[in-house]
Amino acid sequence: MRVIGIDPGLSATGYGIVESTGINRYAPIAYGTIRTSSKKDIASRLFSIYENLQAVMGTYSPDAAGIESIFIGKDPKNHLRIGEARGAIFVALKEHDIDVYEFSPVQVKKAITGYGAAEKAQVCFMVSRLLDIRSAVNEHVADALAIALSVLNQYAIERYGQHDRVTSR
Amino acid sequence: MRVIGIDPGLSATGYGIVESTGINRYAPIAYGTIRTSSKKDIASRLFSIYENLQAVMGTYSPDAAGIESIFIGKDPKNHLRIGEARGAIFVALKEHDIDVYEFSPVQVKKAITGYGAAEKAQVCFMVSRLLDIRSAVNEHVADALAIALSVLNQYAIERYGQHDRVTSR
Repeated sequence: MRVIGIDPGLSATGYGIVESTGINRYAPIAYGTIRTSSKKDIASRLFSIYENLQAVMGTYSPDAAGIESIFIGKDPKNHLRIGEARGAIFVALKEHDIDVYEFSPVQVKKAITGYGAAEKAQVCFMVSRLLDIRSAVNEHVADALAIALSVLNQYAIERYGQHDRVTSR
Repeated sequence: MRVIGIDPGLSATGYGIVESTGINRYAPIAYGTIRTSSKKDIASRLFSIYENLQAVMGTYSPDAAGIESIFIGKDPKNHLRIGEARGAIFVALKEHDIDVYEFSPVQVKKAITGYGAAEKAQVCFMVSRLLDIRSAVNEHVADALAIALSVLNQYAIERYGQHDRVTSR
């Protein structure tokens, strides 16, 4: 099973595709960051996110997708911008007719480290270890890979009912 | 020149296509409301907005688009939802490689009635009159048609430099 995880953002959207290769075994298939220039108009930036993600979807054909749900904070303008990026992303994902799962940051942390209040660095460390990635990845990619792993973990729970988190191999 | 105006919303997105048929002369080409069920997941709802709007774009091939910019208020969750709808809409519009203009509610009111603090009912009345629409249209459609007229008015100002608002024929 192959899952794409997405960390949505107007300036930078991270994506990571992970395949489960056995119980508690995962392989990173591809990952990267879609960046858009703030010099361009909003419509062009959103279309660029959509177009690039669509290309990734076409190349790697994931079976499901995961996206981080938004913590509703105090900055309405920021919510509008993240919402716009999410809108473009959902369209690219749904064009391939796959299920899209939403996980909260706490759920992702819990799935990856077993602890919902884990530090970002700890999540990043576990992601690198689970996927045996030795080069540094940026935070957008790390978040995206963590979400992909969370989706795979969720599938494993539903299937085997025995895991409560992604564990290191 | 043919322009599509959009009033974005997750539950109901209004659209209206208007053509300029001469100085201060406009014809309504098509209008309607794209509705999505709250029983469906967010990704499917956004994809449905995108798909329906794409079909409208394919049928009527407008030359430009207008969308109302968001008044940043106090409800962050609402901004997220409107942002998501806008993201899906921008993708559908940009797929046809047309320019997308944003107008604030005040700019739309001013373009249509000459008065930035006009009542909604007054805008609605003027839209029906300018387009000679005799049947009742819902508020989403009225807003969308008002935005399309605002874009055409903007083009007229740029071209002739003599109008400061859409005027009745």
